[in-house]
Amino acid sequence: MAFIDLTPGTLLSPVPAVMVSCASETQRPNIITIAWAGTVNSQPPMVSISVRKERFSHDIIADSGEFVVNLVGKAQMKPLDWCGVRSGRDYDKFAACNLTPVAATGMKYAPAIAECPLYLACRVEQMLELGSHDMFLGRIVGMGVQEQLTDETGRIHLEDAELVSYSHGIYGAIGEPLGFFGYSVAAPDVLERRMQELRKEKK
Amino acid sequence: MAFIDLTPGTLLSPVPAVMVSCASETQRPNIITIAWAGTVNSQPPMVSISVRKERFSHDIIADSGEFVVNLVGKAQMKPLDWCGVRSGRDYDKFAACNLTPVAATGMKYAPAIAECPLYLACRVEQMLELGSHDMFLGRIVGMGVQEQLTDETGRIHLEDAELVSYSHGIYGAIGEPLGFFGYSVAAPDVLERRMQELRKEKK
Repeated sequence: MAFIDLTPGTLLSPVPAVMVSCASETQRPNIITIAWAGTVNSQPPMVSISVRKERFSHDIIADSGEFVVNLVGKAQMKPLDWCGVRSGRDYDKFAACNLTPVAATGMKYAPAIAECPLYLACRVEQMLELGSHDMFLGRIVGMGVQEQLTDETGRIHLEDAELVSYSHGIYGAIGEPLGFFGYSVAAPDVLERRMQELRKEKK
Repeated sequence: MAFIDLTPGTLLSPVPAVMVSCASETQRPNIITIAWAGTVNSQPPMVSISVRKERFSHDIIADSGEFVVNLVGKAQMKPLDWCGVRSGRDYDKFAACNLTPVAATGMKYAPAIAECPLYLACRVEQMLELGSHDMFLGRIVGMGVQEQLTDETGRIHLEDAELVSYSHGIYGAIGEPLGFFGYSVAAPDVLERRMQELRKEKK
């Protein structure tokens, strides 16, 4: 094994592939596809999204101070891609993609996408100009999950949502659960029980 | 379909599961597992990683102004998890995990991990205190990929690395390529050709 030198580029992988919805007092709901997103803080829970200044959604988010991150499963992959290559200046993306805007907890303008597995409603705390992109730091103030992704104990089964990731221009869904945080130091009986649960949970 | 309200939390998914390596004038090479990472800018290429102040690697990165993000394939999943639950204060993690530190382009102290598929060598441009975590904004100044993940034309085949993601406490590898950026608006012949290539490329 040996490394070959490459020209520095945006090759962190896999990254999330999400649809970010927004709206403002003057703009109808829009959707922008984002792969430059990440969790940046735990308490309080925060995410960042990076958006080029020239994108239609940039000013909507800057003006309203709000955005909603919608996680994307295999079933929403076509709208995910389409919203990444078309502009809200030219299309009503919700209508064009047959997606439904619904109220998102804690948001005044930005809706969630009713068809997506889970949403994170975010209030913009800060915007940093980094070069090609502006990074919006958002505090998560509301969150909703599809009822059918929870069980009777209230546990969330995101592993059933077949979430989509992005890696070097290619979309791929997350496969079978391979382990849980801390599995490498778990006692043998705990490891066996939890891995069995994980495999069973994945329908 | 209907959303159930949840308490806001860090549920952006899938997020990257990476090993970040660091070192300083006074500290030996260490590894910290990070899921709170993201691409934040394209020109110049930048990533962010968020690290709790109390973590051993926090001060190493703050002091040296450097870190290396190492992408993780299925083969490195056990060290990935282990480095997330153990501290460099107690262990030489490279030795304990049988991993090899190698020089990373552009870094004075921080090594890359020789066993990982690809590394991004980053110089810290800014640190933001967000609450539980400090976010380091890193400019990617060097990058290396394993020779066997490239082909004779120089193309990188990250899809062969079986990269690991993290989602709500669970690790999962990326499955088959499902599409490429722009596939939803590609001409039928282009779509067919490129999807065939993608499926073939995945060995």
